[in-house]
Amino acid sequence: MSINSILCRDLGLKYPIFQGGMAYITTGVMAAASSNAGGLGLICSSGLTAQQVADEITAAKRLTDKPFGVNLMLQSPEIEQILQIVIDTKIPVVTTGAGDPTPFMPALHEAGIKVIPVIPHVKAAVKAAKAGAYAVVAEGTESGGHVGDMTTLALVPQVLAAVDIPVLAAGGIADGKSLAAMLLLGAAGVQIGTLFMVADECPIDNAFKQQILQAADTDTIVTGRGTPHVVRSLKNSMSLKYAELEKQPGTQAERDKLADKALLKAVRGDMDGGCLMAGQISGLIKHGGSIASIMQQLMNEAEAALAGANKLLD
Amino acid sequence: MSINSILCRDLGLKYPIFQGGMAYITTGVMAAASSNAGGLGLICSSGLTAQQVADEITAAKRLTDKPFGVNLMLQSPEIEQILQIVIDTKIPVVTTGAGDPTPFMPALHEAGIKVIPVIPHVKAAVKAAKAGAYAVVAEGTESGGHVGDMTTLALVPQVLAAVDIPVLAAGGIADGKSLAAMLLLGAAGVQIGTLFMVADECPIDNAFKQQILQAADTDTIVTGRGTPHVVRSLKNSMSLKYAELEKQPGTQAERDKLADKALLKAVRGDMDGGCLMAGQISGLIKHGGSIASIMQQLMNEAEAALAGANKLLD
Repeated sequence: MSINSILCRDLGLKYPIFQGGMAYITTGVMAAASSNAGGLGLICSSGLTAQQVADEITAAKRLTDKPFGVNLMLQSPEIEQILQIVIDTKIPVVTTGAGDPTPFMPALHEAGIKVIPVIPHVKAAVKAAKAGAYAVVAEGTESGGHVGDMTTLALVPQVLAAVDIPVLAAGGIADGKSLAAMLLLGAAGVQIGTLFMVADECPIDNAFKQQILQAADTDTIVTGRGTPHVVRSLKNSMSLKYAELEKQPGTQAERDKLADKALLKAVRGDMDGGCLMAGQISGLIKHGGSIASIMQQLMNEAEAALAGANKLLD
Repeated sequence: MSINSILCRDLGLKYPIFQGGMAYITTGVMAAASSNAGGLGLICSSGLTAQQVADEITAAKRLTDKPFGVNLMLQSPEIEQILQIVIDTKIPVVTTGAGDPTPFMPALHEAGIKVIPVIPHVKAAVKAAKAGAYAVVAEGTESGGHVGDMTTLALVPQVLAAVDIPVLAAGGIADGKSLAAMLLLGAAGVQIGTLFMVADECPIDNAFKQQILQAADTDTIVTGRGTPHVVRSLKNSMSLKYAELEKQPGTQAERDKLADKALLKAVRGDMDGGCLMAGQISGLIKHGGSIASIMQQLMNEAEAALAGANKLLD
């Protein structure tokens, strides 16, 4: 028994699960592990030079013969070179974030690359579909890291009603029942971030993993509302201080200093000064394991939920 | 074929759908219509005197012999008298909002009334369960009106993992697939607000209904973050002005004036000065109809989704 999704057929995946691109976290090693486990691994280009992206792609290719993708951070100063590397290395699929992907889509399409923008609202989904996107990831505000306003449950049905391309659901998904629920809603698959952060193969410091495993439901905070950098992270000294400063006009410089390299600090184990980007679903995550075991458990739960759905009827 | 839910068996309902209590909106007439349609109608006590609550109960009893409930606004100055009326009129079930329900629960339980607190996070759910709540409504931030921080998709599984009582999902649900998705997640049923606001029996001004029917996904705004009155409403002169004032210190008096009776104004048709409380799912709602027809469509879609869930498997 397995899940019948167009994503699996079109992208050559066993499971309709994307491992979301996360800056400094989803390296070539991690993306390869996700792809070997049956999902789609995604190398995140954010924070990397073009050469570093090339190196991560090489590392991933050494570890898997399965398809994997690259998450393009469109504001990257080296975006043009990164694009060329993705084309030259015949990456089959990219996701995009942090900006309008449509100017980059013709070159990617010419190279036969499927483009899947991560979108926060219907308007962006419609624009992407019109520009020929293969699919979109509809990402809710419960996600970790940079977020929009719409929640996953409110966003996914509205995007599905607006576009004719596959829609993946992202944000708030860390178990197989939630995956099954999103498929029932009409999503072709899901993108998962926070859950994979506690995986063995994830290169973040163990202290960061423990913070996620010990988090309660209300332990995340959103900072930067009303700016282009709206970020959800776990509450800690850094994020609470940032939120305090937001109430005080004229503290932008101090805030910028706090936020400088803050995700990288968290990845390296600075639990006070780092920005512990993670989603609201952290509170549901109680154990780690290999990416393969996490993926397998997701699928077992999802398949059981779908197979048993008619038992909810009399 | 129908949905097999403990809520239906325990509360004598045909469908596991609560019509959420909404101040100035869910009158006795509307609650009776919801109960006659097979769900649980709820009279909202918010903004009503004890005598008015009694009158609404009388009105509902004239129109239905089906069970209906009362949504208790716990901050009401007449909460003690309202409680007594609910007990005297043998209301079988109450939902609670705006405060800690546990001090009121012994009296309600002694009268044989089932108590179902609306909760925004796990801690409140656990406290309610310990105090003997029959169930909880886990309400996500995508809802209209007063909201918490957690999204429905992140909240519901975490509440389900923390309590052993039935959990209803609320926020972001306006079609049958979403209802089915919540049942698959483990919810015993759903509470729905915004969708019922466009129903024929809903007493809000037609102009307000049209605003919901014409809304896009991103047309709601949250005001009052960081205060006890966090409210989601449609963007209009009033809410945008309020949000502007929030950026200016020392404008609390001006904000209070803007917010004064603002929901009531909206209900009566003031589309500029009113607070058009509605959820993020407004953008999915494209037509009204009777509560019975809306409820029937929800159920038909949900039953079809659950019956067909195994087709998502190979």
